[in-house]
Amino acid sequence: MTETPLTAQFVLPYQVMYYDTDCGGVVHNLAYLRWVEECRTKLASHLGIDYAELAKEGRHTVLVRHEVDYHSPAFLADHIRVLGCIEKAEKSSLWFRFEVRRAENDKLCVSVRQRLALVQMPQGRPCRIPAEWTAKAAPTAEE
Amino acid sequence: MTETPLTAQFVLPYQVMYYDTDCGGVVHNLAYLRWVEECRTKLASHLGIDYAELAKEGRHTVLVRHEVDYHSPAFLADHIRVLGCIEKAEKSSLWFRFEVRRAENDKLCVSVRQRLALVQMPQGRPCRIPAEWTAKAAPTAEE
Amino acid sequence: MTETPLTAQFVLPYQVMYYDTDCGGVVHNLAYLRWVEECRTKLASHLGIDYAELAKEGRHTVLVRHEVDYHSPAFLADHIRVLGCIEKAEKSSLWFRFEVRRAENDKLCVSVRQRLALVQMPQGRPCRIPAEWTAKAAPTAEE
Amino acid sequence: MTETPLTAQFVLPYQVMYYDTDCGGVVHNLAYLRWVEECRTKLASHLGIDYAELAKEGRHTVLVRHEVDYHSPAFLADHIRVLGCIEKAEKSSLWFRFEVRRAENDKLCVSVRQRLALVQMPQGRPCRIPAEWTAKAAPTAEE
Repeated sequence: MTETPLTAQFVLPYQVMYYDTDCGGVVHNLAYLRWVEECRTKLASHLGIDYAELAKEGRHTVLVRHEVDYHSPAFLADHIRVLGCIEKAEKSSLWFRFEVRRAENDKLCVSVRQRLALVQMPQGRPCRIPAEWTAKAAPTAEE
Repeated sequence: MTETPLTAQFVLPYQVMYYDTDCGGVVHNLAYLRWVEECRTKLASHLGIDYAELAKEGRHTVLVRHEVDYHSPAFLADHIRVLGCIEKAEKSSLWFRFEVRRAENDKLCVSVRQRLALVQMPQGRPCRIPAEWTAKAAPTAEE
Repeated sequence: MTETPLTAQFVLPYQVMYYDTDCGGVVHNLAYLRWVEECRTKLASHLGIDYAELAKEGRHTVLVRHEVDYHSPAFLADHIRVLGCIEKAEKSSLWFRFEVRRAENDKLCVSVRQRLALVQMPQGRPCRIPAEWTAKAAPTAEE
Repeated sequence: MTETPLTAQFVLPYQVMYYDTDCGGVVHNLAYLRWVEECRTKLASHLGIDYAELAKEGRHTVLVRHEVDYHSPAFLADHIRVLGCIEKAEKSSLWFRFEVRRAENDKLCVSVRQRLALVQMPQGRPCRIPAEWTAKAAPTAEE
């Protein structure tokens, strides 16, 4: 997995800011997850999922689980690519995969699997994933 | 002002975390403001202002202006004291003052003045500051 | 696991701030992980691990992997308890477990497993975990 | 000032993410300042200031003061423009100005003045601003 980049449905370019780093001289582990959220949000828009419209009705996609592996660090001012895809869709949740790579050498920094559910707030009641979202899951995504 | 600490109505103790720092080896400028928000929130609770109850009615205290001076840096694992007081109350806003100091030598890191308004959401309509809040403004706060 | 709290070596009390929440009305998924970092840092101090001293020598504990399950949301002003323990020690890494619970009813919000390595910067070279740290791993921690 | 946008040397487009918002339903006050940092960093690059190269020599531009006025809120998924310019250069500091505006109607959300110094770490010693930076200050900026 580390060697071959995943087949992305969306790629977010990013450049590392001071606020992404810590005094270890590298990017802080939480910063990568902010970039992943930006990639996921833009991937959703790209696929036609209007999360802002959903939010007005009190429906939000919420994170249920994530697994994050930190492979190698990124540094201040690095150019980054965050690759994202929907791995699979289930009745009430979507699985996403992401890779954070340094653009200059394609080196893998972080790989992420995330499961999201669609939830009606404020009750917190799970909603069924719309069929048109399911159709957008990457058909070729492999494990 | 730098030499004599302000007369605090609330003091928040804090210890610097990795996520507060950046690759310059010092605390990032935004981290101080998160601590100030924590101090301001706890000061409000301490004075009997129930912001969580207000939030349920759609009323929120929102920042209207702040002025921040960065005097000297803080470092990983430093013990910090955030001193806060209400400086004055106006019809529709409150002025707060804060100082962030290193506990070991009382050295001033950051000084902050903030003006907050009470606002009814989602319309964004300003509300009158309740009389009981005004009474809580530090009577002795000097400029 | 959800029902019986883990046997904590350190418990961090916390109260939810505005900056922890998002417009879904609940705590944002990244905020919990900041609290977990604070708990982990204070747990380390509590066990006598002087990470600030290590940092001066360019040695930092870095996150290698984490698995996070989000069970139920927390809300503005909630009183929180973050429970943490070292689950096991290996030659070059430590496994931690954390639970984030609402204090009022002990309800589980988030459970976390994290693997950390000790790394020499800026080379990024892994260091052996000191024997005295290994001795501090919770002897009774179950899987 | 609110009506006529400043004469920008750099404009950062941005779209509001969940992590930028809080449970008041609007963007949290600290999020705007993260966008401003991104605009400032990219403005510096755009003007040929290589802050990453400076960082390797232990020189960092650090915030000395900022003044922030919050005019009107931004919301989830809003398209944003952050306008930035160098207002003036002094011997040992630079003054920047920024405006955060909603793209759809150009409405002013936040205006910011920031003073930065160039500092040699870890001593914290101020450095003289290079003459070529001074030449880059917007010659016509001030209101």
